[in-house]
Amino acid sequence: MTDMTEMKEKISELFNKKKFGELAKYIEDINSVDAAELLSDMEIKEMLVIFRLMTKEAAADVFSYMEPDVCEKLIGAMTDKELEEVLDELFIDDTVDLIEEMPANVVNRLLRVADEETRNEINTILKYPKDSAGSIMTTEYVKLNEGSTVGEAIKRIRSVGVDKETIYTCYVTENRKLKGVVTVKDLLMNDDDTPIADIMEKNVISASTKDDKEDVARMFDKYDFMAIPVVDSDGMLVGIVTFDDAIDVIQDETTEDMSIMAAVSPSDDSYFDTSIFTHAKNRIIWLLVLMLSATITGVMITKYEDAFKVMPILVSFIPMLMDTGGNCGSQSSTLVIRGIALDEIQFKDTFKVMFKEFRIALIVSVILALVNGIRIYIMYGDIMLAVVIAASLIGTIIIAKMIGCLLPLGAKKCGLDPAIMAAPLITTIVDNCSILIYFKTASIMLGL
Amino acid sequence: MTDMTEMKEKISELFNKKKFGELAKYIEDINSVDAAELLSDMEIKEMLVIFRLMTKEAAADVFSYMEPDVCEKLIGAMTDKELEEVLDELFIDDTVDLIEEMPANVVNRLLRVADEETRNEINTILKYPKDSAGSIMTTEYVKLNEGSTVGEAIKRIRSVGVDKETIYTCYVTENRKLKGVVTVKDLLMNDDDTPIADIMEKNVISASTKDDKEDVARMFDKYDFMAIPVVDSDGMLVGIVTFDDAIDVIQDETTEDMSIMAAVSPSDDSYFDTSIFTHAKNRIIWLLVLMLSATITGVMITKYEDAFKVMPILVSFIPMLMDTGGNCGSQSSTLVIRGIALDEIQFKDTFKVMFKEFRIALIVSVILALVNGIRIYIMYGDIMLAVVIAASLIGTIIIAKMIGCLLPLGAKKCGLDPAIMAAPLITTIVDNCSILIYFKTASIMLGL
Repeated sequence: MTDMTEMKEKISELFNKKKFGELAKYIEDINSVDAAELLSDMEIKEMLVIFRLMTKEAAADVFSYMEPDVCEKLIGAMTDKELEEVLDELFIDDTVDLIEEMPANVVNRLLRVADEETRNEINTILKYPKDSAGSIMTTEYVKLNEGSTVGEAIKRIRSVGVDKETIYTCYVTENRKLKGVVTVKDLLMNDDDTPIADIMEKNVISASTKDDKEDVARMFDKYDFMAIPVVDSDGMLVGIVTFDDAIDVIQDETTEDMSIMAAVSPSDDSYFDTSIFTHAKNRIIWLLVLMLSATITGVMITKYEDAFKVMPILVSFIPMLMDTGGNCGSQSSTLVIRGIALDEIQFKDTFKVMFKEFRIALIVSVILALVNGIRIYIMYGDIMLAVVIAASLIGTIIIAKMIGCLLPLGAKKCGLDPAIMAAPLITTIVDNCSILIYFKTASIMLGL
Repeated sequence: MTDMTEMKEKISELFNKKKFGELAKYIEDINSVDAAELLSDMEIKEMLVIFRLMTKEAAADVFSYMEPDVCEKLIGAMTDKELEEVLDELFIDDTVDLIEEMPANVVNRLLRVADEETRNEINTILKYPKDSAGSIMTTEYVKLNEGSTVGEAIKRIRSVGVDKETIYTCYVTENRKLKGVVTVKDLLMNDDDTPIADIMEKNVISASTKDDKEDVARMFDKYDFMAIPVVDSDGMLVGIVTFDDAIDVIQDETTEDMSIMAAVSPSDDSYFDTSIFTHAKNRIIWLLVLMLSATITGVMITKYEDAFKVMPILVSFIPMLMDTGGNCGSQSSTLVIRGIALDEIQFKDTFKVMFKEFRIALIVSVILALVNGIRIYIMYGDIMLAVVIAASLIGTIIIAKMIGCLLPLGAKKCGLDPAIMAAPLITTIVDNCSILIYFKTASIMLGL
């Protein structure tokens, strides 16, 4: 782990003493990610001076790790020539990310200074849908010929590799058609005169440009690949996705799932980068829907007004029943949602899941009912009341767990995001069931 | 994406026709992960036959992707000699994973057939705590000397690389002390006679053996590294962690966080691999705690028995207030918990978060109060009732969002897992607040 405060002070010191030569050397040794973070905290003038001290490659690398707002400031302060140099060194997927995040006037300037080849590559990637494999791929990879030998391949990598996002997995193509994959490890572990055709992996696992990026990220998790080739509908190789982008997708999708599971519309920005109005907007829709749904529970309670006029103590068990039902349902729905996300649970497993949850609900509900029944008997000395609460609890928990496991699977089947069927919605639905079960049980058993 | 059903049928066909030569060839072309999945569905006899058709390297690779229960079955059917060959080819971190998952009698057999070097390496890794960087590292990496040239380094990689988990990042050491890092890309992009000392990265970012594996996984997310070196307290290089293990850690930690956030004790096994008794055990503790806590809310309600005897309609708003409060609190706590997990929110940001949540709560609560107030006025024609509910709603939402954002930050500060402070616990705590606010407001404003 690195000490950012120390580095920051050292940079300030060298900067203030105008020791620019020493500063350039010091910065060169800092990891690009850390350098991006250090620069982001500086005044734009200072930032630009240090940026100009870096080599073209280092500057572009640091630039690719900066937040959009800092990039925008820095671009505004750069000359066209400087911008052109940065764009020249940036990997194409980072350029596309940049373009997607900048306002229109900056995008225009970027496209104006970019060379024609870069412009074409940008357009290729931009034409794929937002969440597709095509949108996160890069077009910079090493192509090899089936006819070459290991020695020739290594020579080729040494001559073209510097501009490629990864050199470690190389792609064997014939008229752009993907024929095989060979890793640098394969190359280095074989003699120079071995033909590529002999050592390449012919049974290539690839993604299609239109695949969901989440599915592609899951392939990395499953197969431990460093890169996955992306082919179009004709089997032509159009790009690759690298593991670092897959990690980003995994993290973003998890954040999105967790937001949706907490009834928050997901945001592309981090917590602090999202304005309070956007935060409020992202949260209010579901709150409104859930609040109005909860009034149904209220209306149901008024139907049983007479019961709790006769026996006011009944009201005091409502929170416990509603909360326990909600918690039980959320437990099941969360585990099923995560299982679906990890591809461990499929729709065809519905009955298996139901049966499992039913048995779990039986065990859990009997224990909770016993504990609570005994507590109520001790506290109030009323055996019938204890039995009513215990029975309601068992009914509520079983229904809650069934709803909790079935709704995410149903959502998946209907093409909806299973994450919607999480705690908030489940709780609201289970509330109604628990109130119904409770007052029905009470009415019958206590003869109200 | 691959078609598993098709492969399965082809294998069955070749197997039944006893075309073992053709079968061996067919299996060789299948990716190890898929082969492991295909084999896992077979009878043990069939599995063993196919396993014996594979090369030693392929067999070990397939073995490393099998689930523990399948591994155990397969080990039981293997001869000592076969087991020795598999262990010989397995990477050391996979061997350690295997040992951690097998029952004692299998572990004894594994340790008996392993050679002494493997046994020593296993012991090195096993001595690190469960969730530490040391426990997930591998000791098989390429070491280089500062004094060599690029050409010599490439030659060395070609001779020792086959047994190393990754060859793409090489470590320059002097008396085991980590001096620098050089990638194969660096080597290939430079001339054969360049000294390693000139091109190696000296400012190495490393992890310590005792670092939490979650922090190490986060370093991969941040820096896009393929591997991170692990050093002991004296700065000696003891192992490396590779990106594929980091992806596994990220996925496991997310599953763990989501479980805890749904009041379920996390399980190391997948949903279906966990027995119903373990599932019940993992869920019951929190349900019991939360159920008993919820009775406090019940007791509070009985204090206001007189109020709802006079005005029974008041009871019907309890579910709406409790649910809205719970949902608002969960929204805040989920976003803060995720922000902490991604290192976007730190304890020092507490006041910033509070102020942000307070303003969001104001916007959200005023809108919800207006909608609900108008609805109640229209439905019941009682302006005072509408005002009481609206005021209670505003108070509840502000308190809920404050509790929701503060508790996870407080937990972090106390060294607890912030994920505990999620929906279930927040809901129970907020329930009490909302009931208190509601009946206090009602008592005062309606003069009950």
